Amino acid sequence: MPDHRSPDPVPKPPPRPSSTPPPWIELPDLGFRLDVSRILDPAHLSAQAGSALRAALGEMERLEAGAIANPDEHRQVGHYWLRDPARAPEAESQAAIRDALAQVKRFAARVLGGEIIRREPRASDRGAPATGGSRFRHFLLIGIGGSALGPEFLDDALSIPGKGNSARGAGDTTEPSSEPASLPGLQAHFLDNTDPDGIERTLSRLGAALAETLIIVISKSGGTKETRNGMLETAAALERRGLRLGAQAVAVTMPGSKLEALARAQGFLEVFPIWDWVGGRTSIFSPVGLLPAALQGFDVDAFLAGARDMDAATRRPDPAANPAAMLALAWHTAGEGHGLRDMVVLPYRDRLLLLSRYLQQIVMESIGKEQDLRGTAVHQGLVVYGNKGSTDQHAFVQQLREGPDNFFVTFIHALRDRRLGSRARWERQGEEAPGPVTGDPLFVEPEVTSGDYLLGFLLGTRAALSEKGRWSLMITLPDVSERSLGALIALYERAVGLYASLIGVNAYHQPGVEAGKQAAGRVLELQRRALAQLAAGDPPASPRGEGWTAAGLAAELGLPDEAETLFHLLEHLAANGRIRSLPGESGWEMRFTKS
Amino acid sequence: MPDHRSPDPVPKPPPRPSSTPPPWIELPDLGFRLDVSRILDPAHLSAQAGSALRAALGEMERLEAGAIANPDEHRQVGHYWLRDPARAPEAESQAAIRDALAQVKRFAARVLGGEIIRREPRASDRGAPATGGSRFRHFLLIGIGGSALGPEFLDDALSIPGKGNSARGAGDTTEPSSEPASLPGLQAHFLDNTDPDGIERTLSRLGAALAETLIIVISKSGGTKETRNGMLETAAALERRGLRLGAQAVAVTMPGSKLEALARAQGFLEVFPIWDWVGGRTSIFSPVGLLPAALQGFDVDAFLAGARDMDAATRRPDPAANPAAMLALAWHTAGEGHGLRDMVVLPYRDRLLLLSRYLQQIVMESIGKEQDLRGTAVHQGLVVYGNKGSTDQHAFVQQLREGPDNFFVTFIHALRDRRLGSRARWERQGEEAPGPVTGDPLFVEPEVTSGDYLLGFLLGTRAALSEKGRWSLMITLPDVSERSLGALIALYERAVGLYASLIGVNAYHQPGVEAGKQAAGRVLELQRRALAQLAAGDPPASPRGEGWTAAGLAAELGLPDEAETLFHLLEHLAANGRIRSLPGESGWEMRFTKS
Repeated sequence: MPDHRSPDPVPKPPPRPSSTPPPWIELPDLGFRLDVSRILDPAHLSAQAGSALRAALGEMERLEAGAIANPDEHRQVGHYWLRDPARAPEAESQAAIRDALAQVKRFAARVLGGEIIRREPRASDRGAPATGGSRFRHFLLIGIGGSALGPEFLDDALSIPGKGNSARGAGDTTEPSSEPASLPGLQAHFLDNTDPDGIERTLSRLGAALAETLIIVISKSGGTKETRNGMLETAAALERRGLRLGAQAVAVTMPGSKLEALARAQGFLEVFPIWDWVGGRTSIFSPVGLLPAALQGFDVDAFLAGARDMDAATRRPDPAANPAAMLALAWHTAGEGHGLRDMVVLPYRDRLLLLSRYLQQIVMESIGKEQDLRGTAVHQGLVVYGNKGSTDQHAFVQQLREGPDNFFVTFIHALRDRRLGSRARWERQGEEAPGPVTGDPLFVEPEVTSGDYLLGFLLGTRAALSEKGRWSLMITLPDVSERSLGALIALYERAVGLYASLIGVNAYHQPGVEAGKQAAGRVLELQRRALAQLAAGDPPASPRGEGWTAAGLAAELGLPDEAETLFHLLEHLAANGRIRSLPGESGWEMRFTKS
Repeated sequence: MPDHRSPDPVPKPPPRPSSTPPPWIELPDLGFRLDVSRILDPAHLSAQAGSALRAALGEMERLEAGAIANPDEHRQVGHYWLRDPARAPEAESQAAIRDALAQVKRFAARVLGGEIIRREPRASDRGAPATGGSRFRHFLLIGIGGSALGPEFLDDALSIPGKGNSARGAGDTTEPSSEPASLPGLQAHFLDNTDPDGIERTLSRLGAALAETLIIVISKSGGTKETRNGMLETAAALERRGLRLGAQAVAVTMPGSKLEALARAQGFLEVFPIWDWVGGRTSIFSPVGLLPAALQGFDVDAFLAGARDMDAATRRPDPAANPAAMLALAWHTAGEGHGLRDMVVLPYRDRLLLLSRYLQQIVMESIGKEQDLRGTAVHQGLVVYGNKGSTDQHAFVQQLREGPDNFFVTFIHALRDRRLGSRARWERQGEEAPGPVTGDPLFVEPEVTSGDYLLGFLLGTRAALSEKGRWSLMITLPDVSERSLGALIALYERAVGLYASLIGVNAYHQPGVEAGKQAAGRVLELQRRALAQLAAGDPPASPRGEGWTAAGLAAELGLPDEAETLFHLLEHLAANGRIRSLPGESGWEMRFTKS
């Protein structure tokens, strides 16, 4: 099939007679519902769709049983085992998962209980007990991609202000006078890039609190440059305050990696494992996601249980009753098997703002592939974007309503209007709420709350899109909680895998990411050569004056095609005071010198 | 032309001979550069492109001179006047712009200087001076869409931790012992939705600091429901603390609006204007954007000057020398005039993370239109998405490298690696830095910094995409500053207007947004009817037991087609304790009762 967005209207299911129950796929134990009725009718699948999905479910079964489901990298794909270790095919991996979970929980409990604290370097250098250290109140997670997006999403979705695990409190400027026995959770901070300004901003925000900040360095391979750079910048900031990285850091990495060796050498507080058979973008149920979650006081058992229960439902052999199979088929139908329509993710909850970014990685990195499993060029992909409703209705939803038929919306609806419920709820239970709660819902009009408006905007927009012949899905969750998010993430993990089977690509590798790293390495090598040439002095005297133009330097290096890249490198070095620039008649004529 | 993504490879410019200077469009005064060479060659425009662009520039000239450029709403389009009031065609609007800017600056100076404080309600009720009030340290901006996205973007891009204008400081837990004469800036917080949970989270974060929080309510029309709801929820939270909205609030709205009347009635501290001829998505240079910027201590004059200087360059009659014309043409070329390729925005700076969301609104709400200016159905659009480099290279960039040819990337490069420069920079100047600064750049490898890596990833990715025949643009800025952002926003405002001219749509209305509001209104009306029916009692006794099913209630109301919508409304009411639900055999069979 051609690789384009179809001009032809695709047949859509006829309007459902309103007398029949909607063809919902419901999971009562999870309070979960999937409605694909605006794209397809699960009760009337074509024979072709049914058999393709059954084949995909068969492949998934073999994957879960330990087949080499990632053939390019000759790897097993084991992220489903993380929430149900008994399913791992080898006793060794079963034990590894169980041990890591126990390690995470034990470590988090000891940090929150004040047993694990920042070591005072001097005391510990002398072998004395670390009596003078600081209790941890924050963590700074250093990672990128799959090593940061999941924890960032969970932090934003689950943290409760005043509970101690939100980084953005403003009103709590005074410290409690007496130390509580156990902290409810650490406040989360992140370094997820190699931007010096971004790193400086985050480290400045922490300021003096760096002394009570646990540093979590996460790199599966142990060699990710962005993460290495963030760690080095952090170590330097700690040193400026008389602190030492190893005395307050932990690592999450594959056993045997460079990072593990460094962590051991520098005396990190602990090293947590991640494994070959867990991909970065599906690592949220490994220590990558569980360690920060446990340190924030989130219920990691509920998170794992939500995923495990969704896994059970998404193993159902009948595609029509399997929410992941129906989700994958809906994507396939809407995008005609070639991603011809974008997946617009619209959760109507502020806390789910980062969901689209999280799904963007899972979907686009898994599905965006040049070749299929047979090596044929297919250039598959499925674009994901979105922020949150109803806010986006005042932005790009104008285009969805009126513009091209090149998308389908996933509406996400969480029933409970307040994460902690009302004050009355806690008073009824005779318990203290884990954070500040307001009173009963406020009526902004007679019998209408802000939350009613939120749902009104969702249902109104959905109806308006349907009227215009635009496609949508709707997912209902009971709330935004550990259990619901565990289920939601597990659903998308499975749906991505099934969709990849339908289109015949390997969902578990990312060859393009490696290519990008290599291209960057060549650029930095070019910079090294340029700096060496500049250090060797200005070019032989010429009427044009001192310093090198980019073109001149490129010619000197025998790399005339690299003149433009060299220009950008030299301009950046000059803008940051590391070499000097001399203006020319145009930017291109600018000259650069080290003298 | 058909409304689809083309299967055919589009001719791309031949590789540029490396011996010739790149066809950059440079603005030396702004330190700005646009490189469109990976899409088109400005030096060799087709006659057709040249004449279309000259026509678009002519239309823009008439717009700036006060023509009714938004014919549907019979409005002038005056956002360019905001940075150069002398260009406004009427003396009245000139004076309005100047007065509003003066009002914003005066108000911000008085707030930061401690002259304008929260009024103590009791004292002021008695007519006594407001001696007991609190100085403002925070503001809470309540707005949605164009009334929030700009301020959110500027806050994230420009605020400096420790300077007092970042909401996310963690280490500064102690108050200064002596009150400074003038604060450097307030900390920003936002309510941009009608999600009760999101509202509660933000209000909880402020906590006791609500007493020192200026409330800024922004609604152009003065009737935006989400904003009204956020204001009511905030007023209730203030009341619970013995505070009163009017004593600590300001409004930004059109003179004569419902919000203005409310502000006057409740004794708001001040009301700032916005006008008919400024659209929400281009209101950042009006009090909507300038008031919060000034209160955060940002340099609003530099912000306006950057825009004014970019406006001058984007009025150039020669399209090849006009960066906005070249940008619009590049979008048109890459998308074949029908948005067939998505605009992926990749700024390589953490501070520019929200740029894609800001541009998403400007572009998609302006371009996403069903009809052209002649009323023909065209279903135009241009999808915008992206987050930041190099982080996204560990996510969706895999798909860009290998997947479908359905996008073009806009790389954004800011030369200066640190917003405040190094400590040495400030020591040289003999000044105190306005925030915490680190020392000299850290070398993570010999002669290589984190910032070098960032640029290396940008250039490497750009080269890799070019090799694969994928399109890109590159914008270079000197830094992330008020001046640079003013210029960047002005560039996109103008480019969107020119692009709309090229495709013949009205860039300045948003009919689909209004339609969405009406659809939501119908849903809430349905909820009112359902609640009234529930209040009237359960249905006549039936073998199915007490309560109404959604289908039964829909039939009773004579609205059988609304059964599904009713179900969602009732389920939401039940989940929030406002009615009671009784389980059925399936979700659809659930019954609802008020008793």
